[in-house]
Amino acid sequence: MAQENLSVVLHSKGDLRLKQNDCHVLHVDVLLQMHSVGICGSDVHYWQHGRIGDFVLTKPMVLGHEAAGTVVRIGSQVKHLKVGDRVAIEPGVPREMDEFFKSGRYNLSPTIFFCATPPDDGNLCQYYTHSANFCYKLPDNVTFEEGALIEPLSVGIHACRRAGVTIGSSVLICGAGPIGLVCLLVAKAMGASQVVITDLFPDRLAKAKELGADFQVTVSKSDSPQQLAKKVEDLLGVQPQITIECTGAESCLQTAIYGTRSGGVVVLVGLGAEMATVPLINAAVREVDIRGVFRYCNTWPMAIAMLASGKVNVKPLVTHRFPLEQAVQAFKTTRQGLGIKVMLKCDKNDSNP
Amino acid sequence: MAQENLSVVLHSKGDLRLKQNDCHVLHVDVLLQMHSVGICGSDVHYWQHGRIGDFVLTKPMVLGHEAAGTVVRIGSQVKHLKVGDRVAIEPGVPREMDEFFKSGRYNLSPTIFFCATPPDDGNLCQYYTHSANFCYKLPDNVTFEEGALIEPLSVGIHACRRAGVTIGSSVLICGAGPIGLVCLLVAKAMGASQVVITDLFPDRLAKAKELGADFQVTVSKSDSPQQLAKKVEDLLGVQPQITIECTGAESCLQTAIYGTRSGGVVVLVGLGAEMATVPLINAAVREVDIRGVFRYCNTWPMAIAMLASGKVNVKPLVTHRFPLEQAVQAFKTTRQGLGIKVMLKCDKNDSNP
Amino acid sequence: MAQENLSVVLHSKGDLRLKQNDCHVLHVDVLLQMHSVGICGSDVHYWQHGRIGDFVLTKPMVLGHEAAGTVVRIGSQVKHLKVGDRVAIEPGVPREMDEFFKSGRYNLSPTIFFCATPPDDGNLCQYYTHSANFCYKLPDNVTFEEGALIEPLSVGIHACRRAGVTIGSSVLICGAGPIGLVCLLVAKAMGASQVVITDLFPDRLAKAKELGADFQVTVSKSDSPQQLAKKVEDLLGVQPQITIECTGAESCLQTAIYGTRSGGVVVLVGLGAEMATVPLINAAVREVDIRGVFRYCNTWPMAIAMLASGKVNVKPLVTHRFPLEQAVQAFKTTRQGLGIKVMLKCDKNDSNP
Amino acid sequence: MAQENLSVVLHSKGDLRLKQNDCHVLHVDVLLQMHSVGICGSDVHYWQHGRIGDFVLTKPMVLGHEAAGTVVRIGSQVKHLKVGDRVAIEPGVPREMDEFFKSGRYNLSPTIFFCATPPDDGNLCQYYTHSANFCYKLPDNVTFEEGALIEPLSVGIHACRRAGVTIGSSVLICGAGPIGLVCLLVAKAMGASQVVITDLFPDRLAKAKELGADFQVTVSKSDSPQQLAKKVEDLLGVQPQITIECTGAESCLQTAIYGTRSGGVVVLVGLGAEMATVPLINAAVREVDIRGVFRYCNTWPMAIAMLASGKVNVKPLVTHRFPLEQAVQAFKTTRQGLGIKVMLKCDKNDSNP
Repeated sequence: MAQENLSVVLHSKGDLRLKQNDCHVLHVDVLLQMHSVGICGSDVHYWQHGRIGDFVLTKPMVLGHEAAGTVVRIGSQVKHLKVGDRVAIEPGVPREMDEFFKSGRYNLSPTIFFCATPPDDGNLCQYYTHSANFCYKLPDNVTFEEGALIEPLSVGIHACRRAGVTIGSSVLICGAGPIGLVCLLVAKAMGASQVVITDLFPDRLAKAKELGADFQVTVSKSDSPQQLAKKVEDLLGVQPQITIECTGAESCLQTAIYGTRSGGVVVLVGLGAEMATVPLINAAVREVDIRGVFRYCNTWPMAIAMLASGKVNVKPLVTHRFPLEQAVQAFKTTRQGLGIKVMLKCDKNDSNP
Repeated sequence: MAQENLSVVLHSKGDLRLKQNDCHVLHVDVLLQMHSVGICGSDVHYWQHGRIGDFVLTKPMVLGHEAAGTVVRIGSQVKHLKVGDRVAIEPGVPREMDEFFKSGRYNLSPTIFFCATPPDDGNLCQYYTHSANFCYKLPDNVTFEEGALIEPLSVGIHACRRAGVTIGSSVLICGAGPIGLVCLLVAKAMGASQVVITDLFPDRLAKAKELGADFQVTVSKSDSPQQLAKKVEDLLGVQPQITIECTGAESCLQTAIYGTRSGGVVVLVGLGAEMATVPLINAAVREVDIRGVFRYCNTWPMAIAMLASGKVNVKPLVTHRFPLEQAVQAFKTTRQGLGIKVMLKCDKNDSNP
Repeated sequence: MAQENLSVVLHSKGDLRLKQNDCHVLHVDVLLQMHSVGICGSDVHYWQHGRIGDFVLTKPMVLGHEAAGTVVRIGSQVKHLKVGDRVAIEPGVPREMDEFFKSGRYNLSPTIFFCATPPDDGNLCQYYTHSANFCYKLPDNVTFEEGALIEPLSVGIHACRRAGVTIGSSVLICGAGPIGLVCLLVAKAMGASQVVITDLFPDRLAKAKELGADFQVTVSKSDSPQQLAKKVEDLLGVQPQITIECTGAESCLQTAIYGTRSGGVVVLVGLGAEMATVPLINAAVREVDIRGVFRYCNTWPMAIAMLASGKVNVKPLVTHRFPLEQAVQAFKTTRQGLGIKVMLKCDKNDSNP
Repeated sequence: MAQENLSVVLHSKGDLRLKQNDCHVLHVDVLLQMHSVGICGSDVHYWQHGRIGDFVLTKPMVLGHEAAGTVVRIGSQVKHLKVGDRVAIEPGVPREMDEFFKSGRYNLSPTIFFCATPPDDGNLCQYYTHSANFCYKLPDNVTFEEGALIEPLSVGIHACRRAGVTIGSSVLICGAGPIGLVCLLVAKAMGASQVVITDLFPDRLAKAKELGADFQVTVSKSDSPQQLAKKVEDLLGVQPQITIECTGAESCLQTAIYGTRSGGVVVLVGLGAEMATVPLINAAVREVDIRGVFRYCNTWPMAIAMLASGKVNVKPLVTHRFPLEQAVQAFKTTRQGLGIKVMLKCDKNDSNP
């Protein structure tokens, strides 16, 4: 294509550049003019370390996977979208119709395409091609930035759904970073009556309180997991039925198990060390189920419904905005842990949310 | 016991009297001084017809099953309550430890005791004895009337739980009477993004709008079920995933089936004629599940959690209050269909909510 | 393609012909040399009536959808199959990646391709092209005919799965035709301890007994639904937890509801009149869930596992075999209700099972 | 009571005695003449160590909890049993109607009575009183020994149910001791197509093969968990969807996680060290759920149904029998690991199975 397409490309560990990039529209694809793309912790991690677990950067890769834009061209077989539609992008697109896809858990498909997971390019650029089936039209009352935030919100939806949060649930969330906060928003929207959130940093807990947390617990490194579990129980009057662990820290994994009510659920969202030492017997004999989440599936439509109806308000999550041209500075801001969500604005003519 | 105990006794069809009644405290019971008791449509139905289906009044029966009061005496084996505790009463108490009780569905136990279902006495009186295990302590910030309203709220919780309402659900509720309204409140609290409610009467729909319904549809007797289903689809843009039928009318049963999305759920709450003519094949080939509800089970703790946290506001449901002594007039008011919920105040010294 | 391809084509209602037909292999398809194709009641129904419900024959259509064959050519993108593989064919192939497909219920996708449902051609022919993703390799110890029988077996799997049959379940199956029999086989394989089966015809019940039914009930037209329900309860000592209705007859629908234990499930497999008069309230107040099935999804891999392990034996279901050239006679045999399953042998050089 | 009642009493760690014991029948109880009682590993463990985890023997306790006998006296409120009924005993009887009991998970009730868990007496004696609600009548074609074996069988049922074993499931069972074997029997009865079982000892694997295991893997201490997981995958052609871990060994916990298919389930039955080091992240990112089991609930009726229908054959599990008077020798035999299940015969006049 002829369009100029500035993209945020990670060439190798630590080497982040803005450069031109091509895109091609196949018959089932749409070409999007990107509008707003959030920076995720994983983007920064690839920049700083060149890898996450088994995913290793071996050639330059466009970053970005929290994104929304406008359809500017459509493939010949695309029916549900038209040029001009504003869409949110689900970054994972299964490549094979395997058992996972057929049974509705396509996030587990081992060959899935995923934006900004090596070697697949992301969408932190001006123009980007994506499978039309994984682009979802935004209603007029949902902004591009809200559309981009559906990606982290989806992590919260998938985690709370796997946890079985429902009306009257009491929930402990370990960690008040961006993911802990979206879990908080979703848990409250699903009917949780009481949410306790923990973190090392009081300012993150203050934000959590602002977003609806019923109790905040500042964790001290000297607290033992059992002590912390007891503190949570004392606050609620009972143990929480559900714990959503968003830190990956071993001590928090232990707190999650000790602290959850018999018959309850611990959901693992945070990723820590490969091996963890945990009181597995304590969980087993109290039938506390331990469930992980890998990204999400089937979340965009319900997220759009929630945003359109005003049931969830993600707008306060955006604390910084940068034009695409200042991507490197935006990444530095994220790396410093300032604010919650940094948004890159890819359309020179429209810097609105 | 020596206490005077004025009770609202239905002697026979149409013969409603206020009279003295005794109560005895067994070792697992508590004696309660009643505070607030709501009048339910079934109370009025027994008064007017002397029966509901197979349940026939054959001897005088105290009415009332939406109730809250204060513990004034406790049985020898009661541990979790003490004199002075304010409690909400779950009116159904299983008598046998049968397969239903053991597996967590005690509402289906055929020998269950249930307040104001013949021949079991209800709690529309000044003093009442109940199994302590089915009395739930109210937090200080939950009023007696809210406590009494947990009973109808429980119907909504059980219906929405059986329906699988969750974040982003679109829901059709047929009927905006008291039960339709509690289903609305609960569906929204469980994360439903859009709720359409239908009724014959615009004033009931106005109340539904006030309580959070996203769309109201005034039903005309001339609308065919398919037309009504289409109207709902047009409002939402898609068919609702869930329909909660609260009228029992055959045409509404048909609307519920035609109007629900493939793979969705119809929950039957309203009770109509014994036999119903419905498009069962339409439901079957689209895998629209049809699920009934019989009262509720395991709802009081979560209802209290919701009320205490302010997630659900049932206070606007109470539109009339009468002292116990004016019970007959209160029943007449309910029979006339005035307002939503009529509350009887059983404690002469405390007429607060 | 150059190959001769004799196909069983229904030109219009009542006009069944054997004629040549073309096939084309797209990049995601495989070309199959057909081996064994079962005749289904729906094939006969299209032949006799030219329609089933809203599906109307408007142009000639190849019949057949219970099939197995050998891969003779593969599309460029096909990876999991190779020429020479023996495969069973899942006849439904979703055309769009809609919400149903993404969430694992692709059978509900309204635009699905389905063999021998107008206007989509079936596979009762010598050579047939199908999406490779919906062809499943057969192990050496599973015959072509067993592969073809996975289609009706899948109806049984989907029905029993929707019913929640598990260890110790007591099950009532209404109707001992081919579908009732596969439900019986699957229910026993899933651990049902007692299966009662009903039918009008003693010879069909005799076959059911041979295949493992614990009790057989010959239905007389004069039995009322309640009487029949009582007879089943008397045989089992309790009401069955699950009823699988395979007749579509209104009286059986009523028996299914009256006869199922509180908290149980009625699954609707048989298709009858559009409107049915049933005791819906009886089901509702006893929380007997009513669930339909539409074909099946995600059943081939587990069916192959069952057949390969010998856990299910479908071989006795095949009672007649005809070469493809005698298709019209085979259809007449099926129409007469002789035997259980009539198998057409499409490969002149191999008439083995 | 006047009857002589010889009981197997553990006085303190290592001090096992046969002595007289009293029993009293309350209104909801039945008095049973014991017939057959199996010895469980936990009985031996209390004998040898005087404790299991937090359960510590502080005063003499009758051992035994795998039992069946005959009703010889009934309490005044008992309706479903009569003198002469042969019954199997569910050893856990909830004492409080708490949230766990009300919601159908009474095994998690912290105050539950449980036979032969300190301080609660077991039923290895001649006469024993138990809550009638937890005694289940045996059909004529189920022997006392089969009735006693419902207890270990229940562990298998609860584990397989928590695992979600269903038709076509592939299952790995770690450990071929008595519990691994009952899990095997139940998994096959629930429709598992392929079961792989592992153990250190070839003779235990030989028994597993006899009972229906499809593959046996002799574990060598030098196998790494990943190697063992790979060996299982190679045998099945795919990873098992379900792993039931019955050893409690840390290396097996690791094998269970590495070896289970994405989206699958690991059930923890074996109890090991308090803290375990496991690849929790591997489970989390592949959404392999980890679920423990604590004893069982709601299993006796379905177990009886399975035994009566012949779907499960537990008879080969009994390898040794001793009269009650030779209890100490029977315990020594169990401690030596000889055979599978040692059965004590409590009725001098009837030593039949």
